[in-house]
Amino acid sequence: HKENSPFLNNLEAGKGGDYYDKNLALFEEELDIRPKVSSLLGKLVNYTNLTQGVKEHEEAESTDGSKKKVSKSPSMGTLMGVYLPCMQNIFGVILFLRLTWMVGMAGVLQSFLIVLLCCCCTMLTTISMSAIATNGVVPAGGSYFMISRSLGPEFGGAVGLCFYLGTTFAGAMYILGAIEILLTYIVPQAAIFHPSGAHDASSAMLNNMRVYGTVFLLLMAVVVFVGVKYVNKFASLFLACVVISILSIYAGAIKSIFDPPEFPICMLGNRTLSRDQFDVCAKTIVKDNITVASKLWKLFCLNTNLTTNCDEYFLLNNVSEIAGIPGAASGILKDNLWSNYLEKGEILEKAHHPSVDAAGQKNNLHLYVLSDIATSFMVLVGIFFPSVTGIMAGSNRSGDLKDAQKSIPIGTILAIVTTSLVYFSCVLLFGACIEGVVLRDKYGDAVNKNLVVGTLSWPSPWVIVIGSFFSTCGAGLQSLTGAPRLLQAIAKDNIIPFLWVFGHGKANGEPTWALLLTALIAELGILIASLDMVAPILSMFFLMCYLFVNLACAVQTLLRTPNWRPRFKYYHWALSFLGMSICLALMFISSWYYALVAMLIAGMIYKYIEYQGAEKEWGDGIRGLSLSAARYALLRLEEGPPHTKNWRPQLLVLLKLDEDLHVKYPRLLTFASQLKAGKGLTIIGSVIQGNFLETYGEAQAAEQTIKNMMDIEKVKGFCQVVVANKVREGIAHLIQSCGLGGMKHNTVVLGWPYGWRQSEDPRSWKTFIGTVRCTTAAHLALLVPKNVSFYPSNHERYNEGNIDVWWIVHDGGMLMLLPFLLKQHKVWRKCKMRIFTVAQMDDNSIQMKKDLATFLYQLRIEAEVEVVEMAQLVKDRHSIARLESLYSDEEDEADPVPENIQMTWTKEKCDSEKRNRSSAVGTFRDLISIKPNQSNVRRMHTAVKLNEVIVNRSHDARLVLLNMPGPPKNTDGDENYMEFLEVLTEGLERVLLVRGGGREVITIYS
Amino acid sequence: HKENSPFLNNLEAGKGGDYYDKNLALFEEELDIRPKVSSLLGKLVNYTNLTQGVKEHEEAESTDGSKKKVSKSPSMGTLMGVYLPCMQNIFGVILFLRLTWMVGMAGVLQSFLIVLLCCCCTMLTTISMSAIATNGVVPAGGSYFMISRSLGPEFGGAVGLCFYLGTTFAGAMYILGAIEILLTYIVPQAAIFHPSGAHDASSAMLNNMRVYGTVFLLLMAVVVFVGVKYVNKFASLFLACVVISILSIYAGAIKSIFDPPEFPICMLGNRTLSRDQFDVCAKTIVKDNITVASKLWKLFCLNTNLTTNCDEYFLLNNVSEIAGIPGAASGILKDNLWSNYLEKGEILEKAHHPSVDAAGQKNNLHLYVLSDIATSFMVLVGIFFPSVTGIMAGSNRSGDLKDAQKSIPIGTILAIVTTSLVYFSCVLLFGACIEGVVLRDKYGDAVNKNLVVGTLSWPSPWVIVIGSFFSTCGAGLQSLTGAPRLLQAIAKDNIIPFLWVFGHGKANGEPTWALLLTALIAELGILIASLDMVAPILSMFFLMCYLFVNLACAVQTLLRTPNWRPRFKYYHWALSFLGMSICLALMFISSWYYALVAMLIAGMIYKYIEYQGAEKEWGDGIRGLSLSAARYALLRLEEGPPHTKNWRPQLLVLLKLDEDLHVKYPRLLTFASQLKAGKGLTIIGSVIQGNFLETYGEAQAAEQTIKNMMDIEKVKGFCQVVVANKVREGIAHLIQSCGLGGMKHNTVVLGWPYGWRQSEDPRSWKTFIGTVRCTTAAHLALLVPKNVSFYPSNHERYNEGNIDVWWIVHDGGMLMLLPFLLKQHKVWRKCKMRIFTVAQMDDNSIQMKKDLATFLYQLRIEAEVEVVEMAQLVKDRHSIARLESLYSDEEDEADPVPENIQMTWTKEKCDSEKRNRSSAVGTFRDLISIKPNQSNVRRMHTAVKLNEVIVNRSHDARLVLLNMPGPPKNTDGDENYMEFLEVLTEGLERVLLVRGGGREVITIYS
Repeated sequence: HKENSPFLNNLEAGKGGDYYDKNLALFEEELDIRPKVSSLLGKLVNYTNLTQGVKEHEEAESTDGSKKKVSKSPSMGTLMGVYLPCMQNIFGVILFLRLTWMVGMAGVLQSFLIVLLCCCCTMLTTISMSAIATNGVVPAGGSYFMISRSLGPEFGGAVGLCFYLGTTFAGAMYILGAIEILLTYIVPQAAIFHPSGAHDASSAMLNNMRVYGTVFLLLMAVVVFVGVKYVNKFASLFLACVVISILSIYAGAIKSIFDPPEFPICMLGNRTLSRDQFDVCAKTIVKDNITVASKLWKLFCLNTNLTTNCDEYFLLNNVSEIAGIPGAASGILKDNLWSNYLEKGEILEKAHHPSVDAAGQKNNLHLYVLSDIATSFMVLVGIFFPSVTGIMAGSNRSGDLKDAQKSIPIGTILAIVTTSLVYFSCVLLFGACIEGVVLRDKYGDAVNKNLVVGTLSWPSPWVIVIGSFFSTCGAGLQSLTGAPRLLQAIAKDNIIPFLWVFGHGKANGEPTWALLLTALIAELGILIASLDMVAPILSMFFLMCYLFVNLACAVQTLLRTPNWRPRFKYYHWALSFLGMSICLALMFISSWYYALVAMLIAGMIYKYIEYQGAEKEWGDGIRGLSLSAARYALLRLEEGPPHTKNWRPQLLVLLKLDEDLHVKYPRLLTFASQLKAGKGLTIIGSVIQGNFLETYGEAQAAEQTIKNMMDIEKVKGFCQVVVANKVREGIAHLIQSCGLGGMKHNTVVLGWPYGWRQSEDPRSWKTFIGTVRCTTAAHLALLVPKNVSFYPSNHERYNEGNIDVWWIVHDGGMLMLLPFLLKQHKVWRKCKMRIFTVAQMDDNSIQMKKDLATFLYQLRIEAEVEVVEMAQLVKDRHSIARLESLYSDEEDEADPVPENIQMTWTKEKCDSEKRNRSSAVGTFRDLISIKPNQSNVRRMHTAVKLNEVIVNRSHDARLVLLNMPGPPKNTDGDENYMEFLEVLTEGLERVLLVRGGGREVITIYS
Repeated sequence: HKENSPFLNNLEAGKGGDYYDKNLALFEEELDIRPKVSSLLGKLVNYTNLTQGVKEHEEAESTDGSKKKVSKSPSMGTLMGVYLPCMQNIFGVILFLRLTWMVGMAGVLQSFLIVLLCCCCTMLTTISMSAIATNGVVPAGGSYFMISRSLGPEFGGAVGLCFYLGTTFAGAMYILGAIEILLTYIVPQAAIFHPSGAHDASSAMLNNMRVYGTVFLLLMAVVVFVGVKYVNKFASLFLACVVISILSIYAGAIKSIFDPPEFPICMLGNRTLSRDQFDVCAKTIVKDNITVASKLWKLFCLNTNLTTNCDEYFLLNNVSEIAGIPGAASGILKDNLWSNYLEKGEILEKAHHPSVDAAGQKNNLHLYVLSDIATSFMVLVGIFFPSVTGIMAGSNRSGDLKDAQKSIPIGTILAIVTTSLVYFSCVLLFGACIEGVVLRDKYGDAVNKNLVVGTLSWPSPWVIVIGSFFSTCGAGLQSLTGAPRLLQAIAKDNIIPFLWVFGHGKANGEPTWALLLTALIAELGILIASLDMVAPILSMFFLMCYLFVNLACAVQTLLRTPNWRPRFKYYHWALSFLGMSICLALMFISSWYYALVAMLIAGMIYKYIEYQGAEKEWGDGIRGLSLSAARYALLRLEEGPPHTKNWRPQLLVLLKLDEDLHVKYPRLLTFASQLKAGKGLTIIGSVIQGNFLETYGEAQAAEQTIKNMMDIEKVKGFCQVVVANKVREGIAHLIQSCGLGGMKHNTVVLGWPYGWRQSEDPRSWKTFIGTVRCTTAAHLALLVPKNVSFYPSNHERYNEGNIDVWWIVHDGGMLMLLPFLLKQHKVWRKCKMRIFTVAQMDDNSIQMKKDLATFLYQLRIEAEVEVVEMAQLVKDRHSIARLESLYSDEEDEADPVPENIQMTWTKEKCDSEKRNRSSAVGTFRDLISIKPNQSNVRRMHTAVKLNEVIVNRSHDARLVLLNMPGPPKNTDGDENYMEFLEVLTEGLERVLLVRGGGREVITIYS
């Protein structure tokens, strides 16, 4: 794992001769491997702005011939490098085409609110961006690099793609805007589709947009493909257009105070008439001294003589003419203060204007000016937002800046302040100078198809029409230039593999494929055709992008990531959080379903990148999140042992390694994975004998081996290898200290010490018994699979057969739970579970069987139940002989001959037995006294007898589970104990010895 | 922690005499403490249905006098105990009042879809409920007990409260429904408020509803308060009303085939006329052979003579009469197949009926039948859903059932199937028999203010009117009876402390306060007054409740909770998941903002209960979630060491305990908490000397002590006490094996072995050096705070002063990062950071200072920078003398006299020095050969000299951070090493010795 650090060459530095300097003799050992401060600092001089981490991008940049060589001129100041580009990107087509309309619909006050919300959002995002920019050396390559290097591939990729999609749709929006200007205000006669009926107007316009838009897009794509360098050169020209246009608005507004321009609008009653179908605004005209019907009359009435066969509303109301631009001195502002939202198709009406209602009848709608879409605060937010985006334009030039860390915050914030002031003043001026119905008239139908904002401007409306057309075209070109480059950069980072093709380009590095994709996506936007529909889409993507930036900043602060030390003074996490909230609110305000879709897309990108496991050497500021999450989850857990309901085996598997550090019994892991403990905790522990100071490397190697084996056996869990002087001590420590907080093991899985009898070294079985004692002391459960090599692998399937449980002592229910858990695994799924229990002389075996069945029913465990009756010790002699033979080292492994000991205890027999029993109690009591002396003999009897019964019934079982007897209290009996266990499990293929941890693990309650 | 297990009396059982039975001698040790199988099984017989866990509730129940004693009659079968109660609860007022209207608006097909969605939702929830009911012994006390005992207090409380709120609002809905029936269909003349104008009709009705509703609510509350036992007795009566009503619908539908009832509706054009203001459905009537204007004429025209001063639409269209109930044989079904949603205030029109449009003019609206609310698929879902709720009625009787585990699933599912079939058939019959405009006519205005469903019924509309009125009143009473009891049960569980007051009741256990609250909440619903507004609210709560049930089941399966073994065969987690999704979808479909609010409320309840830390002995099935979360989070982490950007100190604090197991230096913990490592990982480790088998208890006690101390010092983290034969070994093991997966410590905090010189036991410092070696071997960083007792407590505040860093060797940047982290804590916040570095003869100190400042700027760390120049060893003799004096055990602690060694290195001097240096390299090289012999002397020189410089500059610093020299390779020099450290730190109040872990921990990149 190569670290992205400034100190890569530590070792090299150490090789210099000056560490023999006597003054630092104390630190000789350190100086061997670590650099002295002075030599380190000397190297830092070379770092400046262009540092190793960024070099690769620099190279990528330099092969990308079209962009200016960054190394040539990192000399731009705040004004040229950040302020002006930001300004140019922020101002856009919405200001000219929709701001008047917005003011008309929402009123001045709500428009202020919209502008305020949107500007706050970008301002707060800029503060977050500034924090990112001042948190370490800023790489060249723009905001995408800045964000992705700072926040990691997941956030970087998501932000980058959102930004890309936003920019692409912005391109589409600019093209649509340009065509709207062209076809509505410059050359309306160029339209290809003409409305054939009254209701057809808008769809004809949309089709015009689609055709012209596609043509424009193609043209622009060709321009970008051929001569991208000219696009950037014209940037200042475009900015000039914008500035001149805005100035002309201000000029017009000032002029309107004393000399308002002549834009009369014709009203019928309080309804606004569309001006394009008639000339004179009157019902009659006096022509040759004769009063004849005007054109208007003809439109509303079926005939031209002045009889009454007319539209009723026309008859009832007067035609009047009012000033479209009353000017700032007229006090029209107070009419425009409040909102006036309209439904689709409503007629624009001037409030308080005299009007006689014709009984709700609405005819001849095509003669009035209508609202073409339904408006509301929410809709307007979505449409306005694109005019505050573009705040990343400054950051995108990070490579060209003399002092990026200072210029980016100052320049961007100033640009936002400037543009916000322009918007606020424009809202005010429009509200103060223009008549409400004209404001609400989106396409200037009432003012002779003039651009509404143009009517206010001075010296001529054409200033703005032409200015906005060129600036809009320019902005479109810039979007089409920028977006493919961004996509190329993301693709080259290779964090989203399926984008790789877009990383390639022409010989000169031009991103041909990326341009193609961009054009295709932009074409989607153009096919939507309506500016008012495209704007919310790109709002969504930009908001998403800003949301991520704010979120990442807030998270880093709240996690106290040590590396998050932004130098930007005015940064505070609460601002980022507020910014994030505003972004979220704006998204849901403008359209909650778009918002959900956008979040889904961004979330999917994030998860996809995470899933792809993009291991970038940039690191990320967010990884701390998973650490915090893990810590939080662990701290929550540490509330004591879980309820019986939640008990699940949390395994500590003690693995033996051979001399070559290979796993000796990998089937132990297989068994652990089959226990479905995967859903609980599995820790694989192992001990290496040796001295820690010397065997650290060996331990690491062993850990790696075990991890590989865990991958093979599909055990999900943790691995812990310790080095200890004695294996027993190591195991004792593992048992004590594995796990963390609430994530502790409660069950130890231990291998059987095979061949302990042959081994000359008694340590093998002493370690075993020691471990058994340890688990008992630590109140842990213990599982000892014997003949573990015969256990099935994960690929085997047992299609039949039984798992037999010999339930001799109730030990917390482990014996019942384990087969249930095993049966969850494919290998054991088809096995049947049988539970045997041993009836004594005094037990009513029939009742016992019934009780056992009820018990298992309540435990919801399906199992066949059998009660095995054992005769009293009739073969004492045989057993003793056997015991003696064992002690004489005679390895007689012959299977004991199973006898048919099955009897049926009838009720009578049982009762009589009980009577006998009660008298016999005294006799049994006497046995206590002889216990210490004869116990071993008696135990061996039990073992032999039990083994006989078990082998008899379970010799063909797939697995036999058995209570494991406890180890003797004093170590003298250790060897006998091992013998007992051997005898008990003799002749069984697969045995699992189970010892409970002293608590209940299964319950009949839900 | 008392376990809720069936084996509580283990010890007692063990005391029985029969474990001396010889056959089990092998398990003697186990039998001492654990029960033998046979004796255990014998006890199980007593368990049956009423088990310990439920006893408390039983007691609670039995004090609650009104309910039947469960122990008396747990004898109800599926039919009486589950099926009929469920039926009665599911059928409700919506069927009678809104189903026809729904079919009219949504059409038969979409109505089918609505019914299907809602019924699927309840069916899947029932399957989940069945799984819960068959997962262990079912407690008496109803669904709330079942769910809370199974899923834990959080889910239980949230589900319970949602269920309570749903039931309460259902009560309000039933009351509103009853009043609607009363005032619209039975005694319209009883209305208090009368519409004063045309637009006033609905608001007058709402006010009537409010007044009558409040009266009804009061009456019902009194009935419930006084005579709750009668309410339950009338349940069968209410059910009978419902059944009779439904049967009369079927009868009417069959009759309509051959003899449709006479309900003519009067149409004007295609518009439906409201029948209540005229009698004859014609424009004119022939009276005394003279054609005179009818009443209808008078309504539409201003005068009664037959001239044209009339409503235009009236003139243009004919008046016609069509059959309201054409009958099933008429084929009207195909007209009603498709949806016909209306906006608010739209006139009900019959499609395809001849009509001449009067140019969009709509007058005299009050004469037509209008749609009173806007409808859509979504709205109808919300209104219909309450008619499928009530599925928990069967589970609520769990205590009364003979075999709850069988009856609940079967009975509930059958009830849902029955009711679903009724709904489907009703939708079909309504669509097939009733004219569309009548269906859409909510209040039967077109059919003489008859209940629409009543017009279809046979023998009389009154059957349904009366039947539905009584059943609705009954359902309201039942809601008001059930809800307070549920609230009382929740309050008695004490999982939501602020509800405690509602746990109290009258002397006979009646929940008085709960009834009061219920009535108040129901009053809220009544003030809303519109059935169509209240229905979605209760839908929301029920859906929320069902959502939780499904979620909990799905989660338990997916987590593979071992105790989750439902015996219900048809359960599958995918069904629960589907049910959950449908619930969620229905919530958002019917109203996304209500859904958000409901989820917020439920989430808040969940979090509140979680926060209150309700430790119930029931356990929960969901705690596995936190385990899984922790495991998942940990497994995610284990991806190798974090990036330098994310490096943060993860501390392992090695704590020394004294003989009484008290913490010796608690300030080590204070220091750890001040390092804000709280956001990283903190493990407090300690070693107890001894044998693990014997000292387990001691270790537990020590752990508790340390945990208490951690709470006091506000260290959030984990504690790990191990028992080891030797302390050194224990520490080595802690260093090796603490932490889990990716949550491993990377920094060890170690106390200084104070008084090692005086101690006769060399182990104290040998352990120290051993630990230093261990951390080095394990590549961990090491922090040794010296004089830790002088470190500030968490309550102190340093308002001034410096943290001084002596940066001698670059050791990964720990020295820079630690003061930054410390300064995050209140204690150190106001301290200033100073960085000193030592310039050698050949260093350009001015350039060094500049470089250092740049470096720190890029690291974004604010610190004063100083370069200290050290003269060549001019005091060799002095140092050697000192060294000798140390070895002669002379404890000379006098402060060394600081000399003024500050010089300014000018550029020239530096250059000349460099020239000298290059020729001197050879000389330095020679030193290598003498290194082994003279190194100790030279090291001591360095230590003394460095100490002089440090004391000179930093004697008043709050904290001095210093590189810690590495330990000698061979153990011979150990004692010297300790001396070096003592000399180096002599005369400084608080020193923190820092040793890096061999990797970078700080970077200039963002």
